[in-house]
Amino acid sequence: MELVMTMVAKESLKKNMKVFSEKLKRFPGLFWQTVWRVGRDDPRRVVHALKVGLSLTLVSLLYLLEPLFKGIGQNAIWAVMTVVVVLEFTAGATLCKGLNRGLGTLVAGSLAFFIGYIAEKTGHVFRAVFIGAAVFVIGTATTYMRFFPYIKRNYDYGVVIFLLTFNLITVSSYRVSNVLKIAHERFYTIAIGCGICLVMTLFIFPIWSGEDLHNSTAIKLEGLAKSIEACVSAYFNDVEKETTQDKSSEDPIYKGYKAVLDSKSQDETLALHASWEPRHSRHCRYPWQQYVKLGAVLRHFGYTVVALHGCLQSEIQTPQHCRILFKDPCIRVTNEVSKALMELANSIRNRRHCSPEILSDNLHEALQDLNNAIKSQPRLFLGSNKNQATNMLALAAAQANSSQKHEKYNGVSLSSFKTDNSALLEWKSKRMINEHSKSEVAERKVLRPQLSKIAITSLEFSEALPFAAFASLLVETVARLDNIIEEVEELGRIACFKEFKPGDEVIVNIKTQKLDVTLNHFPSQGTE
Amino acid sequence: MELVMTMVAKESLKKNMKVFSEKLKRFPGLFWQTVWRVGRDDPRRVVHALKVGLSLTLVSLLYLLEPLFKGIGQNAIWAVMTVVVVLEFTAGATLCKGLNRGLGTLVAGSLAFFIGYIAEKTGHVFRAVFIGAAVFVIGTATTYMRFFPYIKRNYDYGVVIFLLTFNLITVSSYRVSNVLKIAHERFYTIAIGCGICLVMTLFIFPIWSGEDLHNSTAIKLEGLAKSIEACVSAYFNDVEKETTQDKSSEDPIYKGYKAVLDSKSQDETLALHASWEPRHSRHCRYPWQQYVKLGAVLRHFGYTVVALHGCLQSEIQTPQHCRILFKDPCIRVTNEVSKALMELANSIRNRRHCSPEILSDNLHEALQDLNNAIKSQPRLFLGSNKNQATNMLALAAAQANSSQKHEKYNGVSLSSFKTDNSALLEWKSKRMINEHSKSEVAERKVLRPQLSKIAITSLEFSEALPFAAFASLLVETVARLDNIIEEVEELGRIACFKEFKPGDEVIVNIKTQKLDVTLNHFPSQGTE
Repeated sequence: MELVMTMVAKESLKKNMKVFSEKLKRFPGLFWQTVWRVGRDDPRRVVHALKVGLSLTLVSLLYLLEPLFKGIGQNAIWAVMTVVVVLEFTAGATLCKGLNRGLGTLVAGSLAFFIGYIAEKTGHVFRAVFIGAAVFVIGTATTYMRFFPYIKRNYDYGVVIFLLTFNLITVSSYRVSNVLKIAHERFYTIAIGCGICLVMTLFIFPIWSGEDLHNSTAIKLEGLAKSIEACVSAYFNDVEKETTQDKSSEDPIYKGYKAVLDSKSQDETLALHASWEPRHSRHCRYPWQQYVKLGAVLRHFGYTVVALHGCLQSEIQTPQHCRILFKDPCIRVTNEVSKALMELANSIRNRRHCSPEILSDNLHEALQDLNNAIKSQPRLFLGSNKNQATNMLALAAAQANSSQKHEKYNGVSLSSFKTDNSALLEWKSKRMINEHSKSEVAERKVLRPQLSKIAITSLEFSEALPFAAFASLLVETVARLDNIIEEVEELGRIACFKEFKPGDEVIVNIKTQKLDVTLNHFPSQGTE
Repeated sequence: MELVMTMVAKESLKKNMKVFSEKLKRFPGLFWQTVWRVGRDDPRRVVHALKVGLSLTLVSLLYLLEPLFKGIGQNAIWAVMTVVVVLEFTAGATLCKGLNRGLGTLVAGSLAFFIGYIAEKTGHVFRAVFIGAAVFVIGTATTYMRFFPYIKRNYDYGVVIFLLTFNLITVSSYRVSNVLKIAHERFYTIAIGCGICLVMTLFIFPIWSGEDLHNSTAIKLEGLAKSIEACVSAYFNDVEKETTQDKSSEDPIYKGYKAVLDSKSQDETLALHASWEPRHSRHCRYPWQQYVKLGAVLRHFGYTVVALHGCLQSEIQTPQHCRILFKDPCIRVTNEVSKALMELANSIRNRRHCSPEILSDNLHEALQDLNNAIKSQPRLFLGSNKNQATNMLALAAAQANSSQKHEKYNGVSLSSFKTDNSALLEWKSKRMINEHSKSEVAERKVLRPQLSKIAITSLEFSEALPFAAFASLLVETVARLDNIIEEVEELGRIACFKEFKPGDEVIVNIKTQKLDVTLNHFPSQGTE
């Protein structure tokens, strides 16, 4: 017996080793694949990495070059630290961190100097107690302040740096005589570090948070447009294919709205960082908060698309032959909604007002057609005869089934013919059996036919009820579209977008031109 | 003229000063209010702040006490820095940061030592170039690695610390002869800092990320239960009141699902930190990823609730006298769903399997009743006579209106009587006028009657269509509820929840007892 156990253990060890060695073999391939993909997804990442490398080399020169080192000395290390910590991906984030760091250091230095000044007058022991107490009180108060929503949102990093610098200076002042010199040197070297970071971030291939926020908003609009189109065409065409694909990330419907749903925190961070960036235009304040508001409206639109998508995956379905009656008007409404979203995306991307044709006659006619189509098919909304026939069949099958039930429990294959009560009873009795044999806990999930699923599919709502929900949600998207148009127009007004000119629909490359201008304009100052 | 301008400027300055001074006067009140509210919302924040203060005082003793300082010296400053940076709110976050910092320092120290060893053999100038090149290459490669999703999620902080330490040691090695000593001292002092943080976070009033994730999941379930109940009762009762309240944060419907919708990043962070925490139980791995999965299913349920809420705010509404026909079954379905959600919340909170009665006969009967109610009112799903009469009225009014239209544009007061085409035409002509007088851009938004709103409200879908959507979404929530139950049962299985015993429904205070045990057990070790 023991021998067998040992052999089994050896066998499993061998197997694990094999799996591990195979993973190890695959690792270099996977690694280079990741390296390639990360760079391809956003080439600016490569630029940022190079910028960090360059900044670090520059700041290291303070140490490596003899004359520079003589001027600054050992404290140059703070400059190195500052570069590592402050240089962020976008200009706004770097500015936010850099200014927070500078401000935090300045305030902490002043306070530490003040406390050092008071402590200096007293005796050696009392001084230690005084410093300890100050560290405790300031540490507690500062940490507590970090929970204030306003501070947390805007100045969290500054508060941490304040605490750090304060402790550094206060504590070392006990052993070093000249506090002012420490505070001064620390501030000085941090300023050098921040300076290098600012030059790098603002003048060498700058990456703007505002630009990112702007583009991501346009991309989200396009995603929603694609998603709603894919959703409706899936509803009317290949329902079979849909159920096999399920909710994988390759599903174009899911892919379209996914980015919108969880965009809240990203939008807020980008808007916060963007608000630190120098304005691109002199005429207008850039309304970053309006982008956040627009993002909220887009999320709301997204929820409706999720509900539409839910209609595809729902347990109760309107039969295909009923749906086909409403296919054309629905597809037309969807196309118009999608076209409007695309136009909005283009208008944002090109910084112009959206076309006054955005809500065209077509949308209105399509809504009318849908209305007429629904009114012309009143019988669908009653339980049809065919449906009642199916129901009778189900009843008969159920009675046959319930007489068998006490002998064996192979209900799964028959479940499609069950009436509600028998299914419920069966589920319960199965559950009871499982309760008694607790070792089968793992199987419980597999055995249990989903009760609510049975309950729902066995309901005979009129056939068109699920379609009514679908149509109603589709109309709801039009209402939500209106909110989106309103927010985009508001955005265009605050951000002084260009007026719309006929023919603007085709121009796309304005954005890249604008970016190039910035790039050509700034670097010459930065590298000099 | 100039005098007037100066006076106006003075006036506005005075006004600004007054506003500012009033703000200043209100500031202390607001400040203390915030202090109080932040502490009341989560008293653990006070505990955390005191812990940080205490840790900082402890680590300052390295400087302040003569014998300790002689042992460690100036480098004690790294210990202070470590405490400020590493000590986080929850134990998991602190462990994650502390281990990342330790690991990063260790790896960076080794690499820096290796590079310093190679550089030592060469000449002075070549050495500087070599170090500069190493800083550039390592800086670029490390920063690029931070974009790898796996690294970003798990080891971002460790990579930053690696880069920091590597630069610190490599660069200072050029001026200081003994690299090993720097590396050794930095590691040593950081270890002291991390040690203090770990003791504080694990043994003195520990705050667990896992606990937070667990409780927030239960709270989210309860929020959804309250939200759906409030939503359905609002649909059948006080529609008038609802529209005035709109989407304010005080709205109980919105409040209930709000926390669920944007929970993704919070859930993932908590789960990540929780995975670093020592297991509470010896029998089971704690399945934090299952909480994240459950969170995703809850969000999906939440989207359906949002869609239900959308039915309340929709432009097309089923008249109250129709809704009342379906009130009872709908309310009953809702109550059952809400009861099930509450039972799930309780089961998670008390770490027990959920009651086998969770999907009771009541839910099933309520669904049946709803079904019967809908089948018994077939005429609702046709356009009723009354509706057609309204339509004739609208047509007549519209014709009267369109004859007036070329004289004046006060359409707003008449808009409720407009047919679709006249409204569309009017909207367009108004838009054209605005296009011509561009100075009135700001007014455009106010003047424009919302086209899609008009288009939608003027459609005469059969009266019950919006109700069909409502009912269908309600049934959809039952299907989604099934997914939730499945994930909760899976959670209970993996996390080895207790078996359900009849009467468990009432017990609530198991959690607090369990927490107390932890608290009583640990501190004696921590303070010794």
